[in-house]
Amino acid sequence: MNSTYIARCAQLAMLLEVSATPKPGNVDRDHDFDDTKYEHFLASAISAGPIFERVAIAKKDVGYSIRELVEESARWQSGGNTHFGAFLLLAPLVMAAGNDDVKSVTSVVQDTSVEDAVELYKAFQRIDVRVGSVKELSIDDPNSVNEIKRRELTLYDLMKISSKYDAISHEWIGGFLRTFRGASVLEGKLGKMSVNDAIIFTYLKLLSERPDTLVQSKFGTEKAMQVSEKASRLIKNWDLDAIRDFDEELILERVNPGSTADIVIGSLFVALLGGVKP
Amino acid sequence: MNSTYIARCAQLAMLLEVSATPKPGNVDRDHDFDDTKYEHFLASAISAGPIFERVAIAKKDVGYSIRELVEESARWQSGGNTHFGAFLLLAPLVMAAGNDDVKSVTSVVQDTSVEDAVELYKAFQRIDVRVGSVKELSIDDPNSVNEIKRRELTLYDLMKISSKYDAISHEWIGGFLRTFRGASVLEGKLGKMSVNDAIIFTYLKLLSERPDTLVQSKFGTEKAMQVSEKASRLIKNWDLDAIRDFDEELILERVNPGSTADIVIGSLFVALLGGVKP
Repeated sequence: MNSTYIARCAQLAMLLEVSATPKPGNVDRDHDFDDTKYEHFLASAISAGPIFERVAIAKKDVGYSIRELVEESARWQSGGNTHFGAFLLLAPLVMAAGNDDVKSVTSVVQDTSVEDAVELYKAFQRIDVRVGSVKELSIDDPNSVNEIKRRELTLYDLMKISSKYDAISHEWIGGFLRTFRGASVLEGKLGKMSVNDAIIFTYLKLLSERPDTLVQSKFGTEKAMQVSEKASRLIKNWDLDAIRDFDEELILERVNPGSTADIVIGSLFVALLGGVKP
Repeated sequence: MNSTYIARCAQLAMLLEVSATPKPGNVDRDHDFDDTKYEHFLASAISAGPIFERVAIAKKDVGYSIRELVEESARWQSGGNTHFGAFLLLAPLVMAAGNDDVKSVTSVVQDTSVEDAVELYKAFQRIDVRVGSVKELSIDDPNSVNEIKRRELTLYDLMKISSKYDAISHEWIGGFLRTFRGASVLEGKLGKMSVNDAIIFTYLKLLSERPDTLVQSKFGTEKAMQVSEKASRLIKNWDLDAIRDFDEELILERVNPGSTADIVIGSLFVALLGGVKP
């Protein structure tokens, strides 16, 4: 599969996801966060193009590519972290697509090296996020990199440790199951709903099936479960006004199910690769 | 200047323009047309990346590149014409930027060939638009291409003829004056307004200065002048609610000042190249 085609699918996935509204608790075309605004996500998605293209061709250096994606995004917009979790998912997915088989993503992540792990820790230093980080290897401790080298931890090893409390890492370890499942949910809804609404449905469906780990880490398990239960009720009785109210409520509380949104980006990428077209 | 950087500036210009809301009469993040929706513009902007990149490197074949941009956009989305006018402006601007001097766009367009004119007419066959077309050389008449060849009309010659009634062609002939002026207006407003509002201001400012030729061709000169007078009043008394009302009014009447929106894309490209960042 053509590398520029793959790269553009990844970029468009990022754009369609951030545009879908109302997407309870997250940035969308009608909702900014205080510092991180919709336009920052647009610029970040655009910034990633040539890096995805190189990843699809070179098929190596996942960790370095993630760091590059993070750094390039920061060059193109001033809103801080927009797509860290998405880059963690998309880099190996794009690489697998470059192998003409997006399902080969499992072996792509299993083949990561200690150097990939070190590169991820360098990426952390650029940005204030914890996704994929390992609690006992503090991001703020310069010694963590030495510790990674000493223990010969690959990026896959790191993800294995953090998969217990982080949904993105869990995708890495679990064969990107929710990513692929989201693609199926989305494809099932397209044609019956607008592209926008099908994305919202997919987001709420994935959210209903598992508490969001970003919400969990910030607000605790109980809150994360409440959010998922609410998502479950909303997809049973499809009502955009009710979804809009839930969105307003979560935004006021600053509860953002961002890990689920990241997985939806992965799902959109898989669906676009498979021929879905707006 | 790096070709991938130039291409991404062009893509981001398209995204920021279509996202800016309320943009009276045109598609924006909150207003779709019946068949052409916001998501179609996102996909179209993404589709253009590799073609812009090639244009910035190769620095030739403006007409062929425009046809490719049109065809690639149609492959990526099902909403019909999204960016024809924008591609007419961006192709030579991107080429000039590839020469490290976007202001050299005047010589880029003057250097176009008969083959470029033929390619534009091939692009017309893909899409239902009249922008840049020459009235006495009907798009629907297969003989027009022969006539172009017989009379040895270059793409610049065609634009010269249509510049009397078409704002995009007028840019080609007049040194892209309004495109560069729009970039200055935009840069002057950034910092004082949000990115979104600065784009809306620029759009209304350009609209106030000259009647939109797309509106003119569909609804007559008087209507186009009324729209411009209203735009003039709106920028004097900046009030987003009044702009929103005007937007609703134009959308109901299907009055879309699309040529002005295309020029704003050119202005955004110039501003982004110059270092503006969301």
